[in-house]
Amino acid sequence: MRHFEDFEPGQTRSFGEYTVSESEIIEFAEQFDPQPFHTDPEAAAETPFGGVVASGWHTASLTMRLLVAEFLSETETHGALGVDELRWRDPLRPGDTISVRTEVLDTGPWSDAAGLVTVAVETLVEESPIMTMESKVLFGRREPL
Amino acid sequence: MRHFEDFEPGQTRSFGEYTVSESEIIEFAEQFDPQPFHTDPEAAAETPFGGVVASGWHTASLTMRLLVAEFLSETETHGALGVDELRWRDPLRPGDTISVRTEVLDTGPWSDAAGLVTVAVETLVEESPIMTMESKVLFGRREPL
Repeated sequence: MRHFEDFEPGQTRSFGEYTVSESEIIEFAEQFDPQPFHTDPEAAAETPFGGVVASGWHTASLTMRLLVAEFLSETETHGALGVDELRWRDPLRPGDTISVRTEVLDTGPWSDAAGLVTVAVETLVEESPIMTMESKVLFGRREPL
Repeated sequence: MRHFEDFEPGQTRSFGEYTVSESEIIEFAEQFDPQPFHTDPEAAAETPFGGVVASGWHTASLTMRLLVAEFLSETETHGALGVDELRWRDPLRPGDTISVRTEVLDTGPWSDAAGLVTVAVETLVEESPIMTMESKVLFGRREPL
């Protein structure tokens, strides 16, 4: 298990692969973000998107799934404080395959039990970032203060 | 329909009501954020959370549902650029009822067809903000430049 002490600025990782289907995009959007350019292929075709695109919150949630599977699962995480500078740069479209790239930006004290790590997260489609954010995540200290 | 010209800094709205169940919290987390404090009531009881809490991305997605239903549905929105300062301040727990409060922080030009509106969004449980963020949303101009 990786603890707070194991993170250092500059560490990078690339991982994950997930291909999203049109039916998943529509199902998520019908539940959480029912705007026509997410839910209705015919209406979406008439918008600047030119077709159905995923809700930005779906893109974020799919990114989280890859982060949990490949980045957080072997760590002593205490949860996240939040996210800065979340940007949806390009839409996620049916059939796109996403992967994730992370870079540790900063580490610092938080409590006797945990430290705060700021991680730049890029969600990529064919090496191009479609979503970027800076996540603020708490990790348990191996040796509490 | 409300357009970019209809937004002014200082405008506030409060709306929505949605009660989240434990099964929904677990179902979302199994799909997108399978960490034990989101998916496993017994394991979660042993953590500082004291029980299952919603994934932060679930809280954000439920907030989006209320925003679409009550805020965006009667507007000419062109989608969102992103979010700043997203903070999960308190966990969302089974049985909690959320509502939303918005305040327009800033408006400015974006393109001939759209303007950019920065909206402070608070997700509330019993009047207390459990999640806050600043959303950057594009709205179509009533009269394109």
